[in-house]
Amino acid sequence: MSNPTAAMLVIGDEILSGRTRDSNMHFLAGALTKAAIDLREMRVVSDDPDAITDTVKGLSAAYTHVFTSGGIGPTHDDITADNVARAFGRPIDVRADARAILQEHYDRSGLDLNAARLRMARIPDGAALIDNPISAAPGFTIENVHVMAGVPKIFEAMVASVLPTLTGGAPMLSQSLTVHRGEGDVAAPLAALATKYPSLSMGSYPFQRDGAFGTNLVVRGQDGAAVDAAMAELAALFG
Amino acid sequence: MSNPTAAMLVIGDEILSGRTRDSNMHFLAGALTKAAIDLREMRVVSDDPDAITDTVKGLSAAYTHVFTSGGIGPTHDDITADNVARAFGRPIDVRADARAILQEHYDRSGLDLNAARLRMARIPDGAALIDNPISAAPGFTIENVHVMAGVPKIFEAMVASVLPTLTGGAPMLSQSLTVHRGEGDVAAPLAALATKYPSLSMGSYPFQRDGAFGTNLVVRGQDGAAVDAAMAELAALFG
Repeated sequence: MSNPTAAMLVIGDEILSGRTRDSNMHFLAGALTKAAIDLREMRVVSDDPDAITDTVKGLSAAYTHVFTSGGIGPTHDDITADNVARAFGRPIDVRADARAILQEHYDRSGLDLNAARLRMARIPDGAALIDNPISAAPGFTIENVHVMAGVPKIFEAMVASVLPTLTGGAPMLSQSLTVHRGEGDVAAPLAALATKYPSLSMGSYPFQRDGAFGTNLVVRGQDGAAVDAAMAELAALFG
Repeated sequence: MSNPTAAMLVIGDEILSGRTRDSNMHFLAGALTKAAIDLREMRVVSDDPDAITDTVKGLSAAYTHVFTSGGIGPTHDDITADNVARAFGRPIDVRADARAILQEHYDRSGLDLNAARLRMARIPDGAALIDNPISAAPGFTIENVHVMAGVPKIFEAMVASVLPTLTGGAPMLSQSLTVHRGEGDVAAPLAALATKYPSLSMGSYPFQRDGAFGTNLVVRGQDGAAVDAAMAELAALFG
């Protein structure tokens, strides 16, 4: 049996203008090779409705899987979700499950789920959500197209969420903890914990909010009991 | 008047497998933005004859310019030139002008212009050569498609060769000098010379051959008299 095939679609004017250097193509290429999925082509298109819709249609018909990156944030030029929905003739609106995920995330952060942020809960009918352990706003899978964020750390986490479901592996589970300390304060205890749980991956994602530093700690793995145990230790350390 | 449009096509299994991280897309994106050419899409395809031919045809019809990178070296899987020729229904064979450039380069280097290297003189009928000041083997322009090497330093030099001809600027002239010293020995005098000729760009490209280090020095600019003068000084310093 030959390997499943795949294409990648990067969406964003900032890549085509040279302002931003893409790193998601190289990351995905390596991840798919390890997963024995043949990446046959990659494309970069601009934030243009027809370019997105036409390319998604064409690639979806030609390959087993399509992975997209970019254009699912809160700003007016984040038009990927709407145009992927259009490619499949599906309605799209704010969906209750995605909204609940965002609401919980922003409640926890003490931030307002305003109209801009609510855009990130627009999900096509029938799509399955892709877990975003870093900044909550989910990606989604519709038919054979996996729609993910452009920010590299988030893209990489979403690939880790979705890839095991394609290769028949156990799905990746994740939990996160927000601590109000800078990354430098949490690095050493986190590294010690990572050594204790070699089957899990542990990441730290610093942020700055209202002038204060904080870090989101994310624990990921296929063994749910191990993830729970590690999270309990993390909470005891930093809770 | 709106800007001319462009697409880029990267050819190479090594990019799709994740073994190599492409840098030519980001370089070209920046260079085209500076040249006021709108880069509308980029694609990466594998070393597959139909993928190359079909993509070149499609992009050539859709955009003012198409820039390709990769697949014009001496090995059996370097099939870009043949398939670009096929896209335009043009015959292709070893061409006398390209062969002469390679012959001179390899004579100077004391290397044999063997059958593998001679593949790099295969140029479609009617194509114009693109100067390669670094390793001689030329790129070419056929209709609106500019076929260039994948090695980043060479790709970048070829872009510098071809871009002024598209924007109506004076063509870029280049001369090179091979010195049998390592790059570390030539860096300081070259930097001093670059300061003296601010309108020129000076590059050094180290190589190792038969266990000995050497460096190709390349002087580029639009002012031929300045290039000549700088080369004379270089020759006096290192000749």
